[in-house]
Amino acid sequence: MLLYLLDMFGTAVFAVSGVLLAGKLRMDPFGVIVLAAVTAIGGGTIRDMALGATPVFWITDTNYIWVILITCAVSMVAIRRPRRVPWYVLPVADAIGLAVFVAIGVNKALQFGASPMVAVIMGVMTGCGGGIIRDILAREIPMVLRTEVYATACIAGGCIHTIALAMGSDAVTSSIAGILTTLLIRLAAIRWHLSLPAFDLPGK
Amino acid sequence: MLLYLLDMFGTAVFAVSGVLLAGKLRMDPFGVIVLAAVTAIGGGTIRDMALGATPVFWITDTNYIWVILITCAVSMVAIRRPRRVPWYVLPVADAIGLAVFVAIGVNKALQFGASPMVAVIMGVMTGCGGGIIRDILAREIPMVLRTEVYATACIAGGCIHTIALAMGSDAVTSSIAGILTTLLIRLAAIRWHLSLPAFDLPGK
Amino acid sequence: MLLYLLDMFGTAVFAVSGVLLAGKLRMDPFGVIVLAAVTAIGGGTIRDMALGATPVFWITDTNYIWVILITCAVSMVAIRRPRRVPWYVLPVADAIGLAVFVAIGVNKALQFGASPMVAVIMGVMTGCGGGIIRDILAREIPMVLRTEVYATACIAGGCIHTIALAMGSDAVTSSIAGILTTLLIRLAAIRWHLSLPAFDLPGK
Repeated sequence: MLLYLLDMFGTAVFAVSGVLLAGKLRMDPFGVIVLAAVTAIGGGTIRDMALGATPVFWITDTNYIWVILITCAVSMVAIRRPRRVPWYVLPVADAIGLAVFVAIGVNKALQFGASPMVAVIMGVMTGCGGGIIRDILAREIPMVLRTEVYATACIAGGCIHTIALAMGSDAVTSSIAGILTTLLIRLAAIRWHLSLPAFDLPGK
Repeated sequence: MLLYLLDMFGTAVFAVSGVLLAGKLRMDPFGVIVLAAVTAIGGGTIRDMALGATPVFWITDTNYIWVILITCAVSMVAIRRPRRVPWYVLPVADAIGLAVFVAIGVNKALQFGASPMVAVIMGVMTGCGGGIIRDILAREIPMVLRTEVYATACIAGGCIHTIALAMGSDAVTSSIAGILTTLLIRLAAIRWHLSLPAFDLPGK
Repeated sequence: MLLYLLDMFGTAVFAVSGVLLAGKLRMDPFGVIVLAAVTAIGGGTIRDMALGATPVFWITDTNYIWVILITCAVSMVAIRRPRRVPWYVLPVADAIGLAVFVAIGVNKALQFGASPMVAVIMGVMTGCGGGIIRDILAREIPMVLRTEVYATACIAGGCIHTIALAMGSDAVTSSIAGILTTLLIRLAAIRWHLSLPAFDLPGK
């Protein structure tokens, strides 16, 4: 239940990141909604399609769509009268959403009989997939592929989650362990601006 | 039956728009076919994958592929000896195809048990999805996200369609009401060059 | 069995091509893995989603993921101490992988009851789809849509494969005929730098 509320929170936060990018690109209201929606539910949609968990989750539970629509409406109004929001609010909210999305992806994959390794991949896909599609639509090379300890945090969280399960922890404890791992690594990365060394071809 | 013919007509018109973009980008014949195909059947493919309506429609009914291949062949020949075609022919044909695609998407989603809101989304996805994928392949920011009353017409048509159903109209009447709504809004937009105001971040 | 080993070989070769592009774009290690993975298994994933063959193949058989991860690790190390590799090694290896992927795609589609034409399309999608997604993620217009006898070789191989089946050959013989067709056309194209004439709009 708490996980469900956190899921809706993550959906809203991810939608905001889509709205902000759409605003930067001067999209019309439909573009704003599309970018918000793919960011929020794109990763989970590909996950469900690959798992064969169709109809995908937001067809069965329309709350996701409502959260996205309301988030778009609110943020398009709010953005016109900017108030001082501390810079760290959005990244921290994003980190919470990310951590929850990874845990949900891991759980759903295991539920459909996937192996632990595939479950971690599905967790990462749930967390990062939406942002990648958003950046493709906005014609940018996806940020997550280039910089920051973003995907790495998801991988670590997913691994801790599945390892905890393999060691006999119950689903709730394992999920919490995974969520905290993802969250703490992301918060540390935000705090100290960590980034993995880029892989580069020599002599280019 | 008439709807099926209109569906094939829409497939051909959408394929032409893919061919034209491929020509502008100097693609080889394979690229032309790919761009024509994703424009014509890309939206419906994602819809079917999300609904779990697999194998997707063009695997079951190969007429779609034939229409695309023939359209590519004809338009690659026709384009070499340009004749005077009034400028409004293509947009009007596109508007008819769009209106039909939306209605088909709405009907298919309802048939798979989706709620009315999801049905409208699936209608819009059927109508606009192909053009978005086409623009991604051609490395352009999808036009439909930036300008013109294109998606809006689809949303309006889908809403009228589902509202008519909810009010007790039969499937055929509701589909026609939806198709006419989408079509008239598109034609009005083409005639008077309507466009929604872009959403913009202040001070950027 | 041999086909399975060749499939793994193709997966590794395609992954290398993803690694090389990721290196050129200075992606971080996660980006390298993502680009390697989409190149290697992206085409087959879309094929399986469209056919409704879910969960998709790499969820059921995790060897694909292991091959990709090991390939990434090895090639990121190997690239730092470049040795003289004749220029033709990579394209020839790629041609072998491509030919095998097409045959696998054709067989899988037929197994799911697709018509011969759709089977050819699925073969081409298996062979070329991954490279197209890789190029989209790297924000390039997919090479396969613009140049070289790449997709054409896949189409020819897929056609020979299904024609051989239709003429009564068994699955193994037909697959070999298809693989050799794709392979020989690719090798000829590499040897003599063949390319289809680009389709161009007149007066542009």
